[in-house]
Amino acid sequence: MNTDWLAQPCAVLNEASRTAALARQEQLTKPPGSLGKLEAIAVQLSALQGTEKPKMERVHISIFAADHGVAAEGVSAFPQAVTAEMVKNFARGGAAISVLAQQVNATLEVVNLGTVFPVEPLAKVRDEHIAAGTANFAQGPAMTEEQLAQALQAGQAAALRAKQDGAQLFIGGEMGIANTTSASAIACALLQESPQLLAGPGTGLDGKGVERKAAVIQRALDLHQANLAQPLDVLRRLGGFEIAALAGAYLAAAQNGLPVLVDGFISSVAALAAVRIQPDVRDWLLFAHASAEPGHRRVLAALAAEPLLQLGMRLGEGSGAATAVPLLQLACALHNNMATFAEAGVSDKL
Amino acid sequence: MNTDWLAQPCAVLNEASRTAALARQEQLTKPPGSLGKLEAIAVQLSALQGTEKPKMERVHISIFAADHGVAAEGVSAFPQAVTAEMVKNFARGGAAISVLAQQVNATLEVVNLGTVFPVEPLAKVRDEHIAAGTANFAQGPAMTEEQLAQALQAGQAAALRAKQDGAQLFIGGEMGIANTTSASAIACALLQESPQLLAGPGTGLDGKGVERKAAVIQRALDLHQANLAQPLDVLRRLGGFEIAALAGAYLAAAQNGLPVLVDGFISSVAALAAVRIQPDVRDWLLFAHASAEPGHRRVLAALAAEPLLQLGMRLGEGSGAATAVPLLQLACALHNNMATFAEAGVSDKL
Repeated sequence: MNTDWLAQPCAVLNEASRTAALARQEQLTKPPGSLGKLEAIAVQLSALQGTEKPKMERVHISIFAADHGVAAEGVSAFPQAVTAEMVKNFARGGAAISVLAQQVNATLEVVNLGTVFPVEPLAKVRDEHIAAGTANFAQGPAMTEEQLAQALQAGQAAALRAKQDGAQLFIGGEMGIANTTSASAIACALLQESPQLLAGPGTGLDGKGVERKAAVIQRALDLHQANLAQPLDVLRRLGGFEIAALAGAYLAAAQNGLPVLVDGFISSVAALAAVRIQPDVRDWLLFAHASAEPGHRRVLAALAAEPLLQLGMRLGEGSGAATAVPLLQLACALHNNMATFAEAGVSDKL
Repeated sequence: MNTDWLAQPCAVLNEASRTAALARQEQLTKPPGSLGKLEAIAVQLSALQGTEKPKMERVHISIFAADHGVAAEGVSAFPQAVTAEMVKNFARGGAAISVLAQQVNATLEVVNLGTVFPVEPLAKVRDEHIAAGTANFAQGPAMTEEQLAQALQAGQAAALRAKQDGAQLFIGGEMGIANTTSASAIACALLQESPQLLAGPGTGLDGKGVERKAAVIQRALDLHQANLAQPLDVLRRLGGFEIAALAGAYLAAAQNGLPVLVDGFISSVAALAAVRIQPDVRDWLLFAHASAEPGHRRVLAALAAEPLLQLGMRLGEGSGAATAVPLLQLACALHNNMATFAEAGVSDKL
């Protein structure tokens, strides 16, 4: 399996549509700029979708699930069994992202890339098993080259399914006990920051737990330090299957002209890896929310990203992104359906 | 007409429902607290609605429109005709709030309290004419006692209509050329702050325009200074009909146990006046967004309010509040529909 597809160029934004959308915004019956970021979103979606009147009716959510060998280091507040248990919960409609997807009328699929505990065949769950979790990256590389290629390609396939289905937006989510440890380690390597700055409580570690987590990450960074110059090496050595899949999905979405709404800390780290692999990916990314996980702020800054929501969420699963979908829908509705000054017979500015 | 009804006590929150909702949140399949403000909203709505499982399906929006005598001082970027023109635009579906109300499935009504330019009878517009706008408060009181009572009562009537219709949330909006000047003057009087701090660009004044606006407000504060100790006097002397109506609506909503989602700067000033009239009103108010209008921050701080959204909006009409409705709906759906750890067979924290 090869990764040559990662080098395919990203789709080009439609600047004529952006210009037309900007002109339309100036004619709508409101003071110019008074809808704030809702105006900017509509204009950006116009450029991404290549139309003066963008739509946000078909939203695709892929949740990538996988286990992490580094969980053996005691870096999570929850037992490893929860990864598989939550895959079932996603499929049966009981998880936060299940409820949110239904509310915002999004298509939801779960891609199981490798849980340690087995999951019986379930509707909505695609079994794309790579291995029973990654290896413990505090002791060696998390994945083989082949496993990394498989994970990236699982993400590509999800983005292509979404595109094929006519999705107007792609959201990636993730589930994997210990995956904030993996994401923090990747962020440290990509940003050359210390684990003290980027490790946080994740699902709910106390102060001592966060210290232990940072120490595990530091040990891993020391172990792999000679081999962290390339983003693909960083993903392979420190990654999770689901984080690599998210990076692959973002790359493929950008290559195929499908706008992406990035969720929280882990998704943003995957987005940073994708942008390091190919900088033009950045154009296709919108950012949903600022997570309560403390490292998120630095990752967002490195991506020059200003997320839409600040609600103190820190659940993952794509939940922050799904929560922001109504804002995108309202931005499109306002842009498309408001009357112009001329249509409404309203006097313009003095 | 009298204002004795303002002294009727506010409804009491249901603490048993709050406790039950908090206990439910702890059992849902997510790390405790990981849905951030969405958890707090659901719990707050439980206490307000008096049920463990709050609902947000019936939302009522009343837009109060009126003209302002102080517009004669040249304090707005738009001509006064726009107030009446926008009333028509609201009714015909072309305004931002019309589009938003339709998207979030809210009931929308417009209450015309007194435009200078006439508005023909229109469906969705209630003609509750008090006068052809307020008097210029830079030269004398904006309203008579009778007019203030009428405006407050128009707000009360709107809240009672909403309650009667089974609304689970009340949103007030406003339209009135020059009404940020009125709101800023009221805020100055209630907070004892200077117009330099609280006057802003409104619909789009330049720096010189803002200076002129602040000077007009300072002149009015000097003129009325001996008579600004009571919030009702502040509303009567510096108010707009629509701002007094919003204050009346918030009071009546609190008295009748109907939760309120407050919009932006002008609505928050009305909320501050209502809370000064009766402090318990505060319990019934949720705050939708932080406006780009610079004075909003201080008004929110005085109300100890943390709004849900920061999108740089500054349109009024109730548009920021309508934009936040989906967050309340998602908060309720998550709270009511997520599985508990026991239901889903998911392992709890280690």
